[in-house]
Amino acid sequence: MSPTNSREKYGEPPKAVDLSHHLSEVSKARSLSPLKGYQKYFNRPGMIMLAGGLPDPAYFPIANLSADTLVQDSFDLSAPPALPQPSSSPFSWLWNLFSSSSQVPRPTERTAHISIPKYPPGANPAPRPPPGSPIALAQALQYGAATGIPQLSAFLREFTEKVFQPAYSDWETLVHVGNTDGWSRAVQTLCNPHEFILAEEFTYPSALASAHPFDVRAAAVKIDGQGMRSDDLRSVLEGWDEEARGGKRPHVMYTVPVGQNPTGATMGAKRKKEIYDICVEFDVIIVEDDPYYFLQEGAYVPKDRRSSGAVGGQKEEDEEAFLARLAPSFIKFDYQGRVIRLDSFSKTIAPGSRLGWFTCSPLFAERLERQGETSTQGPCGFSQALVAQLLTQQWGYKGFIRWLRGLGAQYTFRRDYMVDLLHEHFDMQPTTTVSSGAYGWGGEVYVARAKAKALPKGRGGNGFEKSQIGEKQDGNGKGKILFSLIPPTSGMFVWLNINFEAHPSFKSTSSAQDPPAQTLEEKFWLALAEAGLLVAAGLLFSAERDADGSPSSGSDANVGHLRMSFSFGEHEIMKKGIIILEKVLREFFEE
Amino acid sequence: MSPTNSREKYGEPPKAVDLSHHLSEVSKARSLSPLKGYQKYFNRPGMIMLAGGLPDPAYFPIANLSADTLVQDSFDLSAPPALPQPSSSPFSWLWNLFSSSSQVPRPTERTAHISIPKYPPGANPAPRPPPGSPIALAQALQYGAATGIPQLSAFLREFTEKVFQPAYSDWETLVHVGNTDGWSRAVQTLCNPHEFILAEEFTYPSALASAHPFDVRAAAVKIDGQGMRSDDLRSVLEGWDEEARGGKRPHVMYTVPVGQNPTGATMGAKRKKEIYDICVEFDVIIVEDDPYYFLQEGAYVPKDRRSSGAVGGQKEEDEEAFLARLAPSFIKFDYQGRVIRLDSFSKTIAPGSRLGWFTCSPLFAERLERQGETSTQGPCGFSQALVAQLLTQQWGYKGFIRWLRGLGAQYTFRRDYMVDLLHEHFDMQPTTTVSSGAYGWGGEVYVARAKAKALPKGRGGNGFEKSQIGEKQDGNGKGKILFSLIPPTSGMFVWLNINFEAHPSFKSTSSAQDPPAQTLEEKFWLALAEAGLLVAAGLLFSAERDADGSPSSGSDANVGHLRMSFSFGEHEIMKKGIIILEKVLREFFEE
Repeated sequence: MSPTNSREKYGEPPKAVDLSHHLSEVSKARSLSPLKGYQKYFNRPGMIMLAGGLPDPAYFPIANLSADTLVQDSFDLSAPPALPQPSSSPFSWLWNLFSSSSQVPRPTERTAHISIPKYPPGANPAPRPPPGSPIALAQALQYGAATGIPQLSAFLREFTEKVFQPAYSDWETLVHVGNTDGWSRAVQTLCNPHEFILAEEFTYPSALASAHPFDVRAAAVKIDGQGMRSDDLRSVLEGWDEEARGGKRPHVMYTVPVGQNPTGATMGAKRKKEIYDICVEFDVIIVEDDPYYFLQEGAYVPKDRRSSGAVGGQKEEDEEAFLARLAPSFIKFDYQGRVIRLDSFSKTIAPGSRLGWFTCSPLFAERLERQGETSTQGPCGFSQALVAQLLTQQWGYKGFIRWLRGLGAQYTFRRDYMVDLLHEHFDMQPTTTVSSGAYGWGGEVYVARAKAKALPKGRGGNGFEKSQIGEKQDGNGKGKILFSLIPPTSGMFVWLNINFEAHPSFKSTSSAQDPPAQTLEEKFWLALAEAGLLVAAGLLFSAERDADGSPSSGSDANVGHLRMSFSFGEHEIMKKGIIILEKVLREFFEE
Repeated sequence: MSPTNSREKYGEPPKAVDLSHHLSEVSKARSLSPLKGYQKYFNRPGMIMLAGGLPDPAYFPIANLSADTLVQDSFDLSAPPALPQPSSSPFSWLWNLFSSSSQVPRPTERTAHISIPKYPPGANPAPRPPPGSPIALAQALQYGAATGIPQLSAFLREFTEKVFQPAYSDWETLVHVGNTDGWSRAVQTLCNPHEFILAEEFTYPSALASAHPFDVRAAAVKIDGQGMRSDDLRSVLEGWDEEARGGKRPHVMYTVPVGQNPTGATMGAKRKKEIYDICVEFDVIIVEDDPYYFLQEGAYVPKDRRSSGAVGGQKEEDEEAFLARLAPSFIKFDYQGRVIRLDSFSKTIAPGSRLGWFTCSPLFAERLERQGETSTQGPCGFSQALVAQLLTQQWGYKGFIRWLRGLGAQYTFRRDYMVDLLHEHFDMQPTTTVSSGAYGWGGEVYVARAKAKALPKGRGGNGFEKSQIGEKQDGNGKGKILFSLIPPTSGMFVWLNINFEAHPSFKSTSSAQDPPAQTLEEKFWLALAEAGLLVAAGLLFSAERDADGSPSSGSDANVGHLRMSFSFGEHEIMKKGIIILEKVLREFFEE
């Protein structure tokens, strides 16, 4: 056997290999439909169908569904001339309700109109109409296969093929109701009780919460500026001690490789290839949870060195050139069918669409479909009809890519705005020096100190004097390092590594026999909350969990993190948030 | 302790009792959110929220969602003057596409218009706006609680209180994505592996398929014309032999008490009370799957004795009088909080709405909500927004009741039409005599024989002569009984008990050491399919299952059933179906 690892090597990509030994007992116990053998009768034209329990669509009270949808180029690809003001922010309606000066006009949105009748002219009345048939509410709102409506399925298949380019031939796509459902189904399809899954050392808590009740725990793999580290993955797998760990070596990996949650890291092609090859070697299934794929923002460039212009790529470039600039998916390297990829419309259309899809081998797709039949069934018909109509009739493939580019540019502006604010309010110095366990990240690292404070005018001097904290300088003439930061390269979040080692009440780990009732991280989070800023405490994302599912304080109780989101709300809100952060950090470290 | 069993007995209904010992290990292992203790900060006005990963609603491409919705009195409550013709059938678009004479105009639907903007004037921008706030897509399409949007929750609570009248005070409602999801969550919340659940001896196969992979099997309870029999329930529970059964006595019941699937039976108040009291005695949790509640059709009256007029109740009666005529829900007797009721919009709005709700105690509601957070999350926002807008702004409570009455009348016409067709094509005689194991039903039973056949004109005689099968008369001058039937009193299905004992190749059970490769039921189903009629084979609904989840042939392989749906399609289609049934039954029994 000489497996090929990319479609370039051979003309014909290989088929998925048999990985059925990865199925859980629960998944194996799912029955085939007893009607499978009689499928031929269901597809025979002219059959009188009195078998199913379908309501007549005449009784659906929705005669026609329509929507005003934003045009595909609603968001510009170049940097805006100035930071958006409240008057130009699309969220000002919310702001206005809280403010007294609500004279600000709502922004105008450029829209087109889509309409989906119950019985559109030319609709094909077959239970599974061909993908080119007009979308009919009579069908989309009916009971249907867990595979969703054909018009949407066909688009997702085309999109996946063009954008993610799976490296084997018989891959399939299958709709789900969002990546939380997708992962929840995947873990139940793959994992038996008392098993471990591999995960980034900080990861999405809801993913752990989906696995934990089935007694499936995470084994942490160290991360750096590209997300999961391949060297540590090998070391975890090679050095797995079944007895010490209390379970078998993991055969399933959960990873968020783009816009890693919470760190915002993006895993490049080389790292992905390394990790994939290790997973082949150790026979690990990769579940790639990739909701932020199109929110790739690239490296952060400080404001003074940033050139204005195309943030979301060259305006003139075509879809292929744009897609080539994005980090590839794991499935581009997947010549065996050992990746279950999860895509979601939550970040590209809306979370409430509750719509996404798997890309995986026929074996896994079939088992995941069986599971869907006995839980969610197909996704919501309103959502499928609207999204399919928008994607296939209004935007098309090219239009959707344009929309995604616009979104990516918007998130890039937002990322830049928040990291710029940190630069404005802290003394941020780039460094690649890893100074302690708290900074175990590869790539460029910024360290942040308090800035010299401007005094109110009229207090004399040159208008600046050293702040209290600035006065406590070390031998190099610099203040304490308050936190370090690798600016995110994708996604929605900034992840700060707070330098609690520099805190007056820091206790070295070795001497801390009794873990403190409240960690410094928790105290700091509460201080921020009391001052009016809510962030996500780093401990929430810890892959290591206690028996009750709560995050383990671990051995490093003095190290702490926080996650701040730049995805939502006014720029003014972010600014207020960073001002609170600055104030509370100063005060906290002066304790 | 002197529990009260109805709200009439005492002024104040009691609170739910502690039934936490029923929670499964998986359910108990679901963690509380680690943020629970800090909830106060999330609700504090003016907080700067950078914690969550919410996309800005400015990026939702739907600026406005609207629909033409049928008016609440779209369907008449009285019998139509004549059977609907193809020209007046709302589904004729489908028929037309297959027929060459597509001159038939599509029926006109009376509609109103609803519209849900992203940012409606007067919307409250809080993450959980008060129920009276206009529905905003900016909120409905956002990530939200697994409890759904407040406007919908408030309506469901009001509706449940008025219609189902729970007998304890602290009941809650919680949205789910349809009863398949609801039951799937309930079984995982209540059952550990190797357990049994109580179920009607014929039941919904998908419910069994949701439980089976977790090694949860059904213990069959006998049914009659009112569904599950209370005497047999007691006998199953009292006589439970742990060793012989291979598992503990069941502590969970799955039941479809109205429009029982597949039999169409409706369980009345007296039976429900008996069953509830037995469940209190044996500490059983009742999961009441009730999607057909508003398709209550009442007793079938043969056409010649049927008075035309109000099928769906008196036109003039008010909501309360209408509701009082319906069989009550189990929760009307539930003074302890041991019922988990499942309601669905699949039959009252559309299956594609993927929307329904639990009514249960706070203990179960909390665990079911946790499970939703790590699987489906909240239901689809498009669906929630549309259904809530329709129910709260367009129809209102009274309007929705009127819509439901119209639907009930439509299903009654359809039920009557199909049972009338059986009368036209078979010699149907009412009898209460239970003649064999196949007819173990209470209530009125019809037995069906072949009718004397009309000869083509010109073949002499009086135009009628005895059919071949008619000639094989028994001593009483009557032909073989082909099937028996209790006409359904609710729901979508007619359930025929085929009298295979009368079949030439019938073998008595005791002599059938080797079960036949193909049962008579299967042979008969195939004969119908070959002749162009698809029905659901009775064996699919058998509660007893083999280890692989397939229906057990059981000890009674000669007895068979079939389920025919009258919910869907043209009356002409039903007629063609019954003609095929008649022909194949004749031929099959002449073998």
